[in-house]
Amino acid sequence: MRNNQFAHLKVPYPQKLTELQTIQYIDETLLEEKNLNRCWQKLLEKAFPQAHSASSKAQKLAGLLATAQKDVPTFLQTDSLSLTVFYNVALQLLGFLPAEDFSLETPLHDMEKIGLFHATQLESTKDLFSAWYDLLCTHTKNGQVFLDDLAAQGYFVPLSTNCTQPLFFNGKAQPIFDTTKLVHETAYVETDLDTDNDGARDLIKVDFIRPSETNHGLKVPAVYTASPYNQGTNDQAADKLMHSMNTPLVHKTPTHLTYEQLRFKSPKTPLPERRKIKGTTSEAEETFSSEFTYSLNDYLLARGFAAVYASGIGTKDSDGVQTCGSPAETAATIAVIEWLNGKRVAFTNKTDHIALKAWWCTGSVAMTGKSYLGTLATAAATSGVAGLKTIISEAAISSWYDYYRENGLVASPGGFPGEDADVLALECFSRKKQPGDYLKVKAEFNRTLTQITHEQDRKSGNYNSFWDARNYLNNTKNITADIFMVHGLNDWNVKPRNVYHLWQALKELPVRQKLILHQGQHIYINNFRSLDFTDMINLWLTYKLYQLDNHAAELLPTVIVQDNLEPEKWTEYTDWESSQAHKQTLWLQPHELTSTLSAVRPGAATFKDHLNTEAFNYYQKNPAIWRKDLLLPENSPLKANRLLFRTASLQHELLLRGTPEVTVKVAVNKDHGMLSFMLVDYGLAKRLGTTPQVIARKALDRGYHWQQEDLVEFELEKATPWKMISLGHINLQNRHFAWQNDELSPNEFYPVTLKLQPTFYRLAVGHQLGLVVYSTDMGITIRPNEDLAYSLQFGESCLRLQMTSTHLDQ
Amino acid sequence: MRNNQFAHLKVPYPQKLTELQTIQYIDETLLEEKNLNRCWQKLLEKAFPQAHSASSKAQKLAGLLATAQKDVPTFLQTDSLSLTVFYNVALQLLGFLPAEDFSLETPLHDMEKIGLFHATQLESTKDLFSAWYDLLCTHTKNGQVFLDDLAAQGYFVPLSTNCTQPLFFNGKAQPIFDTTKLVHETAYVETDLDTDNDGARDLIKVDFIRPSETNHGLKVPAVYTASPYNQGTNDQAADKLMHSMNTPLVHKTPTHLTYEQLRFKSPKTPLPERRKIKGTTSEAEETFSSEFTYSLNDYLLARGFAAVYASGIGTKDSDGVQTCGSPAETAATIAVIEWLNGKRVAFTNKTDHIALKAWWCTGSVAMTGKSYLGTLATAAATSGVAGLKTIISEAAISSWYDYYRENGLVASPGGFPGEDADVLALECFSRKKQPGDYLKVKAEFNRTLTQITHEQDRKSGNYNSFWDARNYLNNTKNITADIFMVHGLNDWNVKPRNVYHLWQALKELPVRQKLILHQGQHIYINNFRSLDFTDMINLWLTYKLYQLDNHAAELLPTVIVQDNLEPEKWTEYTDWESSQAHKQTLWLQPHELTSTLSAVRPGAATFKDHLNTEAFNYYQKNPAIWRKDLLLPENSPLKANRLLFRTASLQHELLLRGTPEVTVKVAVNKDHGMLSFMLVDYGLAKRLGTTPQVIARKALDRGYHWQQEDLVEFELEKATPWKMISLGHINLQNRHFAWQNDELSPNEFYPVTLKLQPTFYRLAVGHQLGLVVYSTDMGITIRPNEDLAYSLQFGESCLRLQMTSTHLDQ
Repeated sequence: MRNNQFAHLKVPYPQKLTELQTIQYIDETLLEEKNLNRCWQKLLEKAFPQAHSASSKAQKLAGLLATAQKDVPTFLQTDSLSLTVFYNVALQLLGFLPAEDFSLETPLHDMEKIGLFHATQLESTKDLFSAWYDLLCTHTKNGQVFLDDLAAQGYFVPLSTNCTQPLFFNGKAQPIFDTTKLVHETAYVETDLDTDNDGARDLIKVDFIRPSETNHGLKVPAVYTASPYNQGTNDQAADKLMHSMNTPLVHKTPTHLTYEQLRFKSPKTPLPERRKIKGTTSEAEETFSSEFTYSLNDYLLARGFAAVYASGIGTKDSDGVQTCGSPAETAATIAVIEWLNGKRVAFTNKTDHIALKAWWCTGSVAMTGKSYLGTLATAAATSGVAGLKTIISEAAISSWYDYYRENGLVASPGGFPGEDADVLALECFSRKKQPGDYLKVKAEFNRTLTQITHEQDRKSGNYNSFWDARNYLNNTKNITADIFMVHGLNDWNVKPRNVYHLWQALKELPVRQKLILHQGQHIYINNFRSLDFTDMINLWLTYKLYQLDNHAAELLPTVIVQDNLEPEKWTEYTDWESSQAHKQTLWLQPHELTSTLSAVRPGAATFKDHLNTEAFNYYQKNPAIWRKDLLLPENSPLKANRLLFRTASLQHELLLRGTPEVTVKVAVNKDHGMLSFMLVDYGLAKRLGTTPQVIARKALDRGYHWQQEDLVEFELEKATPWKMISLGHINLQNRHFAWQNDELSPNEFYPVTLKLQPTFYRLAVGHQLGLVVYSTDMGITIRPNEDLAYSLQFGESCLRLQMTSTHLDQ
Repeated sequence: MRNNQFAHLKVPYPQKLTELQTIQYIDETLLEEKNLNRCWQKLLEKAFPQAHSASSKAQKLAGLLATAQKDVPTFLQTDSLSLTVFYNVALQLLGFLPAEDFSLETPLHDMEKIGLFHATQLESTKDLFSAWYDLLCTHTKNGQVFLDDLAAQGYFVPLSTNCTQPLFFNGKAQPIFDTTKLVHETAYVETDLDTDNDGARDLIKVDFIRPSETNHGLKVPAVYTASPYNQGTNDQAADKLMHSMNTPLVHKTPTHLTYEQLRFKSPKTPLPERRKIKGTTSEAEETFSSEFTYSLNDYLLARGFAAVYASGIGTKDSDGVQTCGSPAETAATIAVIEWLNGKRVAFTNKTDHIALKAWWCTGSVAMTGKSYLGTLATAAATSGVAGLKTIISEAAISSWYDYYRENGLVASPGGFPGEDADVLALECFSRKKQPGDYLKVKAEFNRTLTQITHEQDRKSGNYNSFWDARNYLNNTKNITADIFMVHGLNDWNVKPRNVYHLWQALKELPVRQKLILHQGQHIYINNFRSLDFTDMINLWLTYKLYQLDNHAAELLPTVIVQDNLEPEKWTEYTDWESSQAHKQTLWLQPHELTSTLSAVRPGAATFKDHLNTEAFNYYQKNPAIWRKDLLLPENSPLKANRLLFRTASLQHELLLRGTPEVTVKVAVNKDHGMLSFMLVDYGLAKRLGTTPQVIARKALDRGYHWQQEDLVEFELEKATPWKMISLGHINLQNRHFAWQNDELSPNEFYPVTLKLQPTFYRLAVGHQLGLVVYSTDMGITIRPNEDLAYSLQFGESCLRLQMTSTHLDQ
């Protein structure tokens, strides 16, 4: 068990006292108490808000052990408080058990091992208040701040009557708002779009949840999640539209294009008039009950933030058609922010034209959400829309080409072979779920869908205007919001390149950027025990949306990376790559990777792509087994279908950072071809799983009698002989640009350079770094299964990568 | 998709009208409306409680399709309502989509296919009201009654102000109580026990949740879940106490015991005085927040039932020590019922002796919960305690011997090899979680634990006084509560024998008994789409606890069995076994099971138990692979370690019901031995998985802005060549009684008869019924791995089982 807290603000003593009084933990009487034991007893008694009488509190105190032989009441009568006893009891309050989790003899030492903060002296009530303040900021065994745990027991109930302002403690907003009285309302925001071509501007349904205290003067910032999935999805229909991956790779006629020729230019289309406002009201006409809610937003709801959900054009109850990542979708997304910010009209319903203002909102907005949701947050940020102060973009796409394509190839998101922009557009077109409404828009949507299918161009796999319109990186210069990014280093759905490109682009801009790289796949991380992500976001949003001067910008590390070797270890860095280190080169030679070019003998190695029908059918249905066989160094049934190069066993641990780059000189026996590469850690070891495992059901409380969430962690799995670190794919006719077809003559050697997915990876002593070169990727690329034979020339083929000894990089 | 509703009560028209008025769906004005279209429109508008204005309601109606070409508003203007159009729209209200889930041309036909009730005529407003009533009782695509769906949208909000009585519709209590205002309180019930020997009667903590409407005159029945797990578990410590399964099987000295000699007799121990009551109050002093809650109880909370949780002796905040299934645990369990029923005192805390009555409770109690929780419900029922009107016992133990032992053998619950009563006692002894309290009871608990370890007697595996004390079947004669049982036919943790024995015992008693057998393992079934379990329980508890004359006893089938061949099919039966059919006999002969004894040639077959160390170690760590190899008919690496007998391929489908019985004449080469048997369905087929799969996240609403739950279903898995139907184990020295050691001379043949776990299984045409005979069961028994060789004599070895053609049994 290892605790990592980045959002625990260390504040000076006077501020501690003030804050303890603000949350009514101590009062004037207690401040005047000079007896340490009596003072401690009072503090302890307040730690049981569920106990409403003195006897009941005493009963709780009797459950705590001060020393191996004495419970707290006994100790209070006979002994004087010491630092050790304080933390013996503190640890029990935090849910840790003597003997099991710590020793009553060495609590301080054990806290350091777990990663829990402790004070170093306890001589006076001043020391006691100070230590107690920090104890309230410390994580329990169940992964939340002790004060949040107390809040879940009802600590803030006495402070919760008719709050008209938020309450801050240690820089973070506290759960004082009554979540049993949340107001759920719906409005319809008018956009500057008519994507369904019906002669009226598209209205977008917005569902919002606000503390009822806003009815009595409180104004709150909004946390907004844009999710095209939220109104339902057309799973069956989308499944039917899935494309076959068993299609031939074809020769593409060489082209000479400049980027300017394909750059997306927004068409100027005439727009229907705005609706005439026929009246205004402050009351919504529609409410809602169940909706997907992001538990991070739920947590914030109790703390004085509204939660806002919108699904955008083409979704149930909204107008328009789904267009998968288009500028229109971005415009619809930010229309909601403009409404929240007072700059756009929303109506109570679609017909009456009665305007409803977001009068309860301060106008400050943050966006949250993972995957497509985080993608739309990124899209919104690149618009520079006023009011959007920050986004927390998790596992977000920054360019849809990097989601569905790669270097002139169709390359599926991991786990979804055959999906494409058209499939996702249909999947999210939830107007289909309202048959009466669908009747009116069906023809127009089908037209749009056909156009998407055509323009996404699976035939060439090239970058074109369609993809350029869906490349948010083109617009990073507009960004004014600070950006907090989260991504899984094992996310092969939205691959790490997406966040890496955004991360790099932001460096040119006068905005703050934060990054957390975890070891998971495509997941949320707000319920891990080992990381105080939720606290960080609270600190961050309190700073960004409530403008509290809580030093969030400086306190929160620029980059946090979860270690891939040690569980529950999260380390601060200043950047993804090291500014001190340069890329090193490893040369390919038969079966080996070597740093000594002079040792490489000239020559070539070959492999083929074709499999017999039985093997092909088996592998395409079992991509995990295919990958296992592909990576198997000895006696692999696929040994003729790939080349495998490995370094010698490492003498020192290495840290791989950033984007691995591969150059090969390659020839293929036909006029078309594609290459795939995997960077692999070889070495038998237990490795972290990439799917969070529940370690305590419903252990996280998001407030008092409010949402509960499972506590999770990545756990070490059974030992495996290898692990894929990164991968990449390229069409040999796109050696220079993803938009341009190069010539490819059969059996002629061409130099090919491509970037693999960026990584951050500790390679253990004794392990080997491997590079596997192959063609068809059963999980990602199309599967032509053609008689293609590839040759790689040694001496001109290499891997380049930032590799440093780890002790240099901490 | 197949809907099965057993709790949809068909009521006469006048009652429908009354109930529709009671829930304020229709009023006098609407009753006088004779125009079908206008009447229908009003009913439709009420189906959108989230829409608060006429325009908003109109907008919702426009989302519904009446015919392929017309939405509802258009249709209303131009056409007249027909039965087909009514159900086209009704199906959409239920969440079904035209084209995907049903055809707009044939809604009635499609409803029949799905299993949805529909009316057959719609000529008048009377027909319309009648059909609408039943529509409100019909399940949505997301597995809950339409009226529950409306309730989740806020339908009952206008009726929810200061309710002083429950509201019933279609025989079931409706969610009119405000779950945002639930009262959470704690009390300490005084028992007639002093299990921790501290000179004071054990106090048991009770956490209860009641509708706040009870503060204003409402009295509610209580749904009580007794869970020793609820206050936390000592996982690490219990893991350490786990027993090794790799122990030798030893010869047991023959005994001649009668049951009377080992019958448990309750020791008469002097009991401390009751606490003197120093005062009374109606206000609790302690509250609580998070606690495990059974979602079935949450559902009931919104409907006018209190939810009560207690963990019993030896758990955190209670007194006493954990004793795993002992009579003391039963007494502690029922003490809570006695308090709810006004017959026992509870205090506000442990020290002040201020009595707190359950003044908000009608005194009627039901118990719920799965596994140990259901076990304690069974235990409570066998006490005959007043106030306990019914129990819903799910996957419950009826005798702890049947959980940890079998026929003189240690036999672990599936998935928990090495667990025993002592391990579970330690696991649940959560007083250990409160170190200050633990200090006082540690020595006494350790003494108790040592005693349990001794008395459970892993050495002999025999039934003795310890197990007799934990055999609730001894006390079934006391049962006065009606019993609703639920068990998984694939539950190898609490094996089906437990429910079968209780089921059979109840037949002798003047109580009602209901049984649901599902195809799962050790799971809850209150969130399946295909079965209206939650509705059934509502109907049942409304009948049992609110005494509503809703015909629950007659409407609910005596036995419901989930089909193992067709997904989502649940069938009514009158009993587990058929009263018409007798057991048939299949004789063992080499590799075959045959019904013709005369065809069996004399002779014997042999197998050994021993494995080489490598195989033994591998199989004990991979019991699933061991089982796969054990059952493999051809080229099994374990073919010398078992005998396999199979019938010819079936010409007709067979239904296997009840308890298979095996007789073998067996010899073993030493003076000790054990046999295991598996009954197996051989035949390549896709079979239902036994773990529920989530088909819609958070799709089930338990009330308005109240708990949400995932919707699940068993799904067909990849084809497998076989499936285990049943199993059994016996110590060859316990041929007559589990408590008596028989002689066993080496190499002498003895007849052995044992009952396997009861089943209810459809065996498909073309499949074969198989019986596998072996000794060590890697997943269940001890693993002596000794050079034992067994011989089975043909002609005197057979399998007996109720096997009938399925068409006879529907």
